[in-house]
Amino acid sequence: MTSRTEWVAVDWGTSNVRAWGIGADGEHTFAVGSDKGMGRIARAEFPAVLDELIGKQADGPNLDVVICGMAGARQGWLEAPYLDTPANLNALVGGAVRPEGADVRFRPRILPGVCQRQAGHEDVMRGEETQLLGLLRLKPGFEGVAIHPGTHSKWVEIRDERIVRFSTAMTGELFELLSEHSVLRHAMTGERTGPATEDGVAEGMSAGLEHPERLTSLVFRTRAAGLIAGKGADWCAGYLSGLLVGAEIGGHRDWLGRGEVPLIGSARLCRLYGAALAKIGIQSFAIDTADATIAGLKAARAQVA
Amino acid sequence: MTSRTEWVAVDWGTSNVRAWGIGADGEHTFAVGSDKGMGRIARAEFPAVLDELIGKQADGPNLDVVICGMAGARQGWLEAPYLDTPANLNALVGGAVRPEGADVRFRPRILPGVCQRQAGHEDVMRGEETQLLGLLRLKPGFEGVAIHPGTHSKWVEIRDERIVRFSTAMTGELFELLSEHSVLRHAMTGERTGPATEDGVAEGMSAGLEHPERLTSLVFRTRAAGLIAGKGADWCAGYLSGLLVGAEIGGHRDWLGRGEVPLIGSARLCRLYGAALAKIGIQSFAIDTADATIAGLKAARAQVA
Repeated sequence: MTSRTEWVAVDWGTSNVRAWGIGADGEHTFAVGSDKGMGRIARAEFPAVLDELIGKQADGPNLDVVICGMAGARQGWLEAPYLDTPANLNALVGGAVRPEGADVRFRPRILPGVCQRQAGHEDVMRGEETQLLGLLRLKPGFEGVAIHPGTHSKWVEIRDERIVRFSTAMTGELFELLSEHSVLRHAMTGERTGPATEDGVAEGMSAGLEHPERLTSLVFRTRAAGLIAGKGADWCAGYLSGLLVGAEIGGHRDWLGRGEVPLIGSARLCRLYGAALAKIGIQSFAIDTADATIAGLKAARAQVA
Repeated sequence: MTSRTEWVAVDWGTSNVRAWGIGADGEHTFAVGSDKGMGRIARAEFPAVLDELIGKQADGPNLDVVICGMAGARQGWLEAPYLDTPANLNALVGGAVRPEGADVRFRPRILPGVCQRQAGHEDVMRGEETQLLGLLRLKPGFEGVAIHPGTHSKWVEIRDERIVRFSTAMTGELFELLSEHSVLRHAMTGERTGPATEDGVAEGMSAGLEHPERLTSLVFRTRAAGLIAGKGADWCAGYLSGLLVGAEIGGHRDWLGRGEVPLIGSARLCRLYGAALAKIGIQSFAIDTADATIAGLKAARAQVA
């Protein structure tokens, strides 16, 4: 980590912010992060948070800082208007905005998100578009559907280096809501005896894949199986998790062709989604979110630098 | 309200408890209620709560009190073990339990719930079975599917005065969770301008009926439509509500035959479900929950009195 930092890549999400110093040969010169995500700070605080995060690393003026994610939302540092679908991923940097107020040592630029305005299919993303630009660098020429499993999973169809259409599934947030705030929480906080998590995951996944249309009912089975079928907290948590992932995938089956599906997310979620896809005969491969993000930010900067 | 109270009908739910005095000709001699539902009181408190509720009305010993609902749950006053499907609705009173500890003026009896143990379809109800016994008195000979819209909606198939199978949909609870605790709450607390609630309900309902399998994604449209399509808080709340009801019905379409569907619930929910059913050519009629419950408790008591 002794080489000179040429510029800084930043992923500024709702909950967290991460920054990587990038050297002349694309090597990482540092990696830092904090929990000062967009949702936790006021607009006026962005310059100070950036300084706090990377100030020690800047050794001259005008250090390029390329930012993706929620910093460009309306409630963020400065709104970077969405690109519309079909969105050319190579046009991201052209839609970037330059916020005022940063220390003179930095020259920050925020990449836009992408939106889909088609009536009945309105949707928005901020951050995934940059990961997808990264995917195109890591897998040149990729066409097909990529999935970003997460709190708000994204399904994105890519053709000719463009986002053709996409769909956001609230799978991760539904799991949190149901397991923490709903009547199902009772099934997941009881005795941790009975069948294991993996059995529950497998059973929930099959149910969701086969009957995604019955999701509002299948979720209640978590509670009923706890009450009358001797299923413990582990099984119930696994069942709910597998069910929601299965229903997300089952409901998007018509999006899937025969090609291998890139899963861009955490290792744990990529394994879970990969297992569900395998059940319906679809192969997939995992890409870590940070790897895709950095590759995307590098590609974006290369297009102007 | 001057005639003598022969017995008392009680609906003891999770959140509330309601009691009706019944005279010799089936007329109501009083109606009382409180928020001391099963979920809000300890086991030992049930006798005192009952006394508080109807003590003033008892003018002799051994007043029959027939109770349905969550008072018979494991965490309730005394567990009334479930009847298994196929469950004969005329056998409810035979499965009733008699809790100890009530004042000598009362002779309480708690009706059982019904459970479905079939692996993969585990489900439970407490209260709706009594309403369905009531339905059989209000509509003698009814066969087909009845729906109880609510926090946990129930779909119940009835043949030969038996509950053949049933399915619980967490529709009402999902609406509460999503509108109060999820990212969608932002879409529902903004300006109340833009298109009206009814437009949102209609659009959400159509989407849910047509694509119940895509529910995890369609819910996110609430947020996106607020962000990029100028939809205000009213529309968004209507859309989410219509979507969840539509998805519940759309996901249970194979349960519906050609017959008229009884909707047992509040007037507001029955209107909403009735409108959604009409969109797919199904006729329905509404029965108020209290009317069905009282009819059911009367029928149960008549079977032993």
